[in-house]
Amino acid sequence: MKTLQDYIDKLNSLNFKEMYNNDFFLTWDKTDEELEAVFTLADALRYMRENNISTKVFESGLGISLFRDNSTRTRFSFASACNLLGLEVQDLDEGKSQVAHGETVRETANMISFMADIIGIRDDMYIGKGHTYMQEVSNAVKQGHEDGILEQRPTLVNLQCDIDHPTQAMADMLHIIHEFGGVENLKGKKLAMTWAYSPSYGKPLSVPQGVIGLMTRFGMDVVLAHPEGYDVMPEVEEIAKKNAEKSGGSFTKVNSMAEAFKDADIVYPKSWAPFAAMEKRTNLYGEGDFDGINKLEKELLAQNAEHKDWACTEELMATTKNGKALYLHCLPADITGVSCEEGEVDASVFDRYRTPLYKEASFKPYIIAAMIMLEKFENPADILKKLEVRNTPRILK
Amino acid sequence: MKTLQDYIDKLNSLNFKEMYNNDFFLTWDKTDEELEAVFTLADALRYMRENNISTKVFESGLGISLFRDNSTRTRFSFASACNLLGLEVQDLDEGKSQVAHGETVRETANMISFMADIIGIRDDMYIGKGHTYMQEVSNAVKQGHEDGILEQRPTLVNLQCDIDHPTQAMADMLHIIHEFGGVENLKGKKLAMTWAYSPSYGKPLSVPQGVIGLMTRFGMDVVLAHPEGYDVMPEVEEIAKKNAEKSGGSFTKVNSMAEAFKDADIVYPKSWAPFAAMEKRTNLYGEGDFDGINKLEKELLAQNAEHKDWACTEELMATTKNGKALYLHCLPADITGVSCEEGEVDASVFDRYRTPLYKEASFKPYIIAAMIMLEKFENPADILKKLEVRNTPRILK
Amino acid sequence: MKTLQDYIDKLNSLNFKEMYNNDFFLTWDKTDEELEAVFTLADALRYMRENNISTKVFESGLGISLFRDNSTRTRFSFASACNLLGLEVQDLDEGKSQVAHGETVRETANMISFMADIIGIRDDMYIGKGHTYMQEVSNAVKQGHEDGILEQRPTLVNLQCDIDHPTQAMADMLHIIHEFGGVENLKGKKLAMTWAYSPSYGKPLSVPQGVIGLMTRFGMDVVLAHPEGYDVMPEVEEIAKKNAEKSGGSFTKVNSMAEAFKDADIVYPKSWAPFAAMEKRTNLYGEGDFDGINKLEKELLAQNAEHKDWACTEELMATTKNGKALYLHCLPADITGVSCEEGEVDASVFDRYRTPLYKEASFKPYIIAAMIMLEKFENPADILKKLEVRNTPRILK
Repeated sequence: MKTLQDYIDKLNSLNFKEMYNNDFFLTWDKTDEELEAVFTLADALRYMRENNISTKVFESGLGISLFRDNSTRTRFSFASACNLLGLEVQDLDEGKSQVAHGETVRETANMISFMADIIGIRDDMYIGKGHTYMQEVSNAVKQGHEDGILEQRPTLVNLQCDIDHPTQAMADMLHIIHEFGGVENLKGKKLAMTWAYSPSYGKPLSVPQGVIGLMTRFGMDVVLAHPEGYDVMPEVEEIAKKNAEKSGGSFTKVNSMAEAFKDADIVYPKSWAPFAAMEKRTNLYGEGDFDGINKLEKELLAQNAEHKDWACTEELMATTKNGKALYLHCLPADITGVSCEEGEVDASVFDRYRTPLYKEASFKPYIIAAMIMLEKFENPADILKKLEVRNTPRILK
Repeated sequence: MKTLQDYIDKLNSLNFKEMYNNDFFLTWDKTDEELEAVFTLADALRYMRENNISTKVFESGLGISLFRDNSTRTRFSFASACNLLGLEVQDLDEGKSQVAHGETVRETANMISFMADIIGIRDDMYIGKGHTYMQEVSNAVKQGHEDGILEQRPTLVNLQCDIDHPTQAMADMLHIIHEFGGVENLKGKKLAMTWAYSPSYGKPLSVPQGVIGLMTRFGMDVVLAHPEGYDVMPEVEEIAKKNAEKSGGSFTKVNSMAEAFKDADIVYPKSWAPFAAMEKRTNLYGEGDFDGINKLEKELLAQNAEHKDWACTEELMATTKNGKALYLHCLPADITGVSCEEGEVDASVFDRYRTPLYKEASFKPYIIAAMIMLEKFENPADILKKLEVRNTPRILK
Repeated sequence: MKTLQDYIDKLNSLNFKEMYNNDFFLTWDKTDEELEAVFTLADALRYMRENNISTKVFESGLGISLFRDNSTRTRFSFASACNLLGLEVQDLDEGKSQVAHGETVRETANMISFMADIIGIRDDMYIGKGHTYMQEVSNAVKQGHEDGILEQRPTLVNLQCDIDHPTQAMADMLHIIHEFGGVENLKGKKLAMTWAYSPSYGKPLSVPQGVIGLMTRFGMDVVLAHPEGYDVMPEVEEIAKKNAEKSGGSFTKVNSMAEAFKDADIVYPKSWAPFAAMEKRTNLYGEGDFDGINKLEKELLAQNAEHKDWACTEELMATTKNGKALYLHCLPADITGVSCEEGEVDASVFDRYRTPLYKEASFKPYIIAAMIMLEKFENPADILKKLEVRNTPRILK
C-alpha cells in the first residue's frame, strides 16, 4: 500500500461495525474482516505517523490502565497508543488506591471511568480469573453508561488475560504479514509454536494460546509442540482446530521440538507453565495455601529442568525451511549464556534476529491504537480522511 | 436548563469576581453566589462534554496533585478535571521526592510550580494540620509569583483537609439539587447527617463537617446525629448554626439516629472519629508516642463497637419521608455482610441506591473543573461562549 | 531583549546545526555558539510563556524519564519542559518494569521508545557508570532508528550523570547572565565553587564538575576550593583549565574557603564526596562488598566532620565583593540550624538569597525545553516565528 487512500479504501471494503462501542477480549470473538480492519488501521496509523500527520482524534479523555502484573513493553505500548490518539493515560495502581480495601469491582470501575474512553487491563496471573475480571469491569461500565452515571461507555482492550494476549498475537501476526509480503502469502506456511526451557516458572499461557488461537486463521500449518504435561487450555486447542479447518490450514500437536521445527517457516519457541499446574496454583491461592504454592513451584522447576533440551539452538534452526525460519518471541527471552545459564534460545540465534524481533514488538502500539479507534469510532475510514484533510503536523514543521 | 446560553446567562447574573486568582479552601469562605457559580459552571461543563464540545482552555500547563492519604476516586476526579481543561497532572509523590528529607514546604511548593496552574491537595489525617499546610503552600506560591519566581500564581483546590471536604460536599449538593429539581425546592427539606458504625477507626471528620457547613445554607432542616462523644469540630458547628439562621433553615443536634431519620428527605449515614480523639492522636503523633497511638486505636474501636446499632437499616429507612429519603454517601461505604460483618448500611438499602450514589460521585470531576476555571479565568462566561463558537469536538466526528 | 524577533535574530546569527538530531550529554561537547543557542532559546520560550503564546510544537509524542536517583525539582523541571512543548511524560520506573530482571539496556531502550521523541536520564550515583549508561541508551535507539524499528530517533537529555549536570549548570549560568545583565559583563568576575560541610555523605560530584566545566568558558576567574582529599575528577579539571585559557579567564585551585571567597562576585558553596572515595564505592558495589561500603561511609562521615568550618557564614560572605557576592546553590541546601545542626550555609545568608535562589532554579525547565527543541528541530528560529504567527494562547483569553 502506498497512499493513505489505499488504507481508507481497504477499510471501506470491510465489515467491522460490531466493533464499534464494544470491547476487544479475545481474537476468536472477532470475525476475519474485523481482524483485517485492525491490521489495516494499524498500518494506516503508522503510515500517518511516519508522514507527520497527527492522528489526534481526542481533544481530551482518559485511557485507564490497570496492570495486575509487572510490565514494561505493554505499559509503554498502551501509553504510546493513547498518546497517539490524544488520550491521557491514568494508571490505576491498586497499591495506591482503595481497591485493595474491599471495594467491589463494579464500584471502582465506575469511579475511575467518569471521563474514561478506554480501559486497558493486564491480568494474566491466575487461570480462570483475568478474563472473568475484565468481563466484570466491562459489564460494570456498560451498565454505568446505561444508568446515566457515565457520559460515555468506556470500552476495554485486553492487554493480556489468562486465556488470550490479543495485542501480542496481533502484533506478531502483523509482523508476519509484513515479513511475508501480505496475508495472501501465508497459505501452506508452517508455523511452530513450541515450548522452550526457562529457569523461571509460571510464565503465562496466554502467549501460546493467543498464537494458536489466531495464527490458525490464515491457512497456515500450525504445530503446537511441548513436552508431555505442558498442555495449554483445551478450549483454546478446540478453537485452533476449528480455525484451521475453516481456513484450509491445519493444527497439530507434537511432543518434539525437532519435529515442529522441521521445515518450519516461522518458529515461536517460548516457555510456559502447564495448564493443569496453573489451575492447581489458582486453587491453592484461593485456599490461601502458601506452603502448597511453594511446593508446587519447586515441583514445576524440577519438572522444567527435565526438558533443558527444549531450546532454540543453531542446530534446530538449521533444520527449518532453508535454515531461515522467521524467529518470533514476545520478549524478553531467556537467552542462553546471556540472561541465564540455559534458556529458551541460543545467543547467536537471538542476536541474528534481534532487529526483526524489535520490529515485531514495534507493531504493538499501533495494534492497540487501531483497536481503540475501532471501538470508539463508528466510521474510522471517514476519520482518517478527515485527519488527512486537516493535515495537522505531529511535529511542527 | 436547556442550552449553553442559559448557563452563560446564569453566570453573568452572579458575582464571583473574588474567586479569580484565589484558592478554594472551605465552602464557608465563599458567598452564596460564588457557590452557585461553581454549580452552574459544573453543569455547563457537563453539558458541553455531553454535547462533544471541547472545553480545553489550557494548551499546556500542569495540575499538581499532592495526596497525603490513599485515594482512588478523588485522584481520578482531579485527573479527569485537569484533563477536561487541558492541564496535565503531575503527582508529587513524597516517597519518591526529596520532600521527606527536610525540605521546607515553601521551597518545595515553588520548585514544583514553575509551570503549575493548579495544585490539588488532600491532607486530612491530622486535626489542625491539613488546612494549615494548604495555607502554607498557597502563601509560598503566591509569594513566589510576586517575587517573579513563578510566571503565574498556581491556585489551590482543597481535595480534603482536616476541616472541610469541599469538592465532596459540593458534589453531594449538586446531586441533591438535581434530584430535587433545583435549589429552590430545598427549603424546609430535612437532611440527616448521622454517624454510623464501622469496624474501622479514624475516618476523617471532614465529610460530616463539610456537609453541615454547606447544606445549612439552603434553607433545609439539617440534623447532625451521633452517639455521645462523637462530636465534630465546634467551630464548624458554629458555622452551621449561623448558616441555618441566615438561610431560614435550622441546624439541630441529636444523639439518636432514629430521631434524625424520622421523616427525613435526605440521609447521610457515615462513620467518623470523635474530634477529641483525633486531636489526641495528632498530639501523640507530635510526641512520637506510638504506644499511645496503638492504645488509643484500641479504645476507639471498643468505643465504636458499643454503637453497632447506629446502622442505616431497612427499618430506619422506612421511617423517612414516604420511606424514600435520598440516601447519600461519599463512598466507599461499609456495607453489612458485604465489605464487613456489620457496617454503616444494609446491603439491600445500598443496592437500591447504587445508581444514584454513583451519579452523586460523578459530579465531583465537574465540581473540581468548575473550581479550577473560576480560579484561573476572570470571565468564565465569556470563555464558555468562545468555546461554543470555536466548537472543537472533544471526539473527532 | 524586548521582542520575540530579537531572540529569533539572535538564533539566526548562531551556528548550532550539529545539535539537531543529537544528544546533550556534557556542556564541553558543545561549542560556545551552541550553548548560546540554548540560553537564547530558553529566554525566548520564557518570553513566549509570559506573553501567553503557546509553544506546543508536538501534537503527540512521549518524553521518557528515567530517574535512577530520587528527584523532585529535576523531575518536575523535565515534566514542565515536556508539557510546554506538547510531549507527554512517561516514567520508566525500574521497580515496576522488567528492567530489573536481566533485560539488556539495548532491548529496554528500544521497547520504550516506539513513540518517544526525548529521553531524559538521571544516573549520578556511581562514578564511571552514569555517562556510560546514557551513551549505551543513545546508541541503542540511534541504531533502532537506523534499523527501521523506531520511526524517529529519540535523543537524550542528560538530567545528571556522574560527570556533568548540564541542565543545572546551564540554569545556574543563565541566572548569572540575567543577574549581571549579559554574558558580556562576566569577563574578569570571580566565581568561587567551593566545598562546604554537610552532615550527609556521598553527594554527587556532577554539580561542582558541571560548574567548573561550564563557567570557565566566559572569561571569569573560577576558583575551585575544597579541603585536601576532596578532589573532583581530574579530566574535568583539565577541561576547566583549557576553557579558562581559551576564554581569557583563569582556573585555580585552593584549599581554603576564605581565599576562594575573598572578593568573589559569585559563590557556590556546596558539599560533595571525594572523587577517589566515590570510585572506591563504585568498586565495592561492583564486588557486592556491602560491609566495605558501610565502613567507607563511616570513614567519609568522619572525614567530613573534620571540615565543619567549611561553611558559608555571614563572616565569609562579608569578605566577598562589597559583601554582596551572588550566592548560588542547586538546592536543597543543608542550612545550619534549619535542615541540620551544622551545614553548608548560615540560615541568615540563605534567607537573604532565597528569592534569587528560587529564580536560579526557575530557569531549569526552560533550559531543558530549549535543549529538546534544539535536538528535535532543524530550524528552531523558524519554528518560533511560526508559533508567533499561529498565536495560539497558552490559556484561552
